[in-house]
Amino acid sequence: MPGMKAHVWVMPKRTVLDPQGQAIQHALASLGFAEVKEVRQGKFFVLELNGATRDAAEKQVEKMAREILANPVIEEFRYEIVE
Amino acid sequence: MPGMKAHVWVMPKRTVLDPQGQAIQHALASLGFAEVKEVRQGKFFVLELNGATRDAAEKQVEKMAREILANPVIEEFRYEIVE
Repeated sequence: MPGMKAHVWVMPKRTVLDPQGQAIQHALASLGFAEVKEVRQGKFFVLELNGATRDAAEKQVEKMAREILANPVIEEFRYEIVE
Repeated sequence: MPGMKAHVWVMPKRTVLDPQGQAIQHALASLGFAEVKEVRQGKFFVLELNGATRDAAEKQVEKMAREILANPVIEEFRYEIVE
């Protein structure tokens, strides 16, 4: 069975401060990119999965994102199955 | 003028080892997600830009990604202007 690929985005929750993003916004402003009002930084994962159906892959990726890739107290995630 | 939003993905180049991704792949395998063959981890940025045309925003985001957000020696980037 051919493999599948998944993309997972993990972002700080809207209600949580994002000090990394703020540091980047300040750095950009000091380097002349004053039009950048806000930066939020998150993580992006590309997962290659061995032979699974699309349904099984979705369940697995959701579980991995919830239990391991994201910290649900301060982060939220979304994912997509690509192929 | 209303603002624009940009998404930027920064990933380790294909030719570069991704130790973070490998560590996650091993962690997932040891936690029972053996079907994950490979993981690559990158960064994802959401930028809010003050009033710019789509064209100007594209130029600015390309420049920021190339000069600041990504390290072109070991990383590659892509971006999209969202609204």
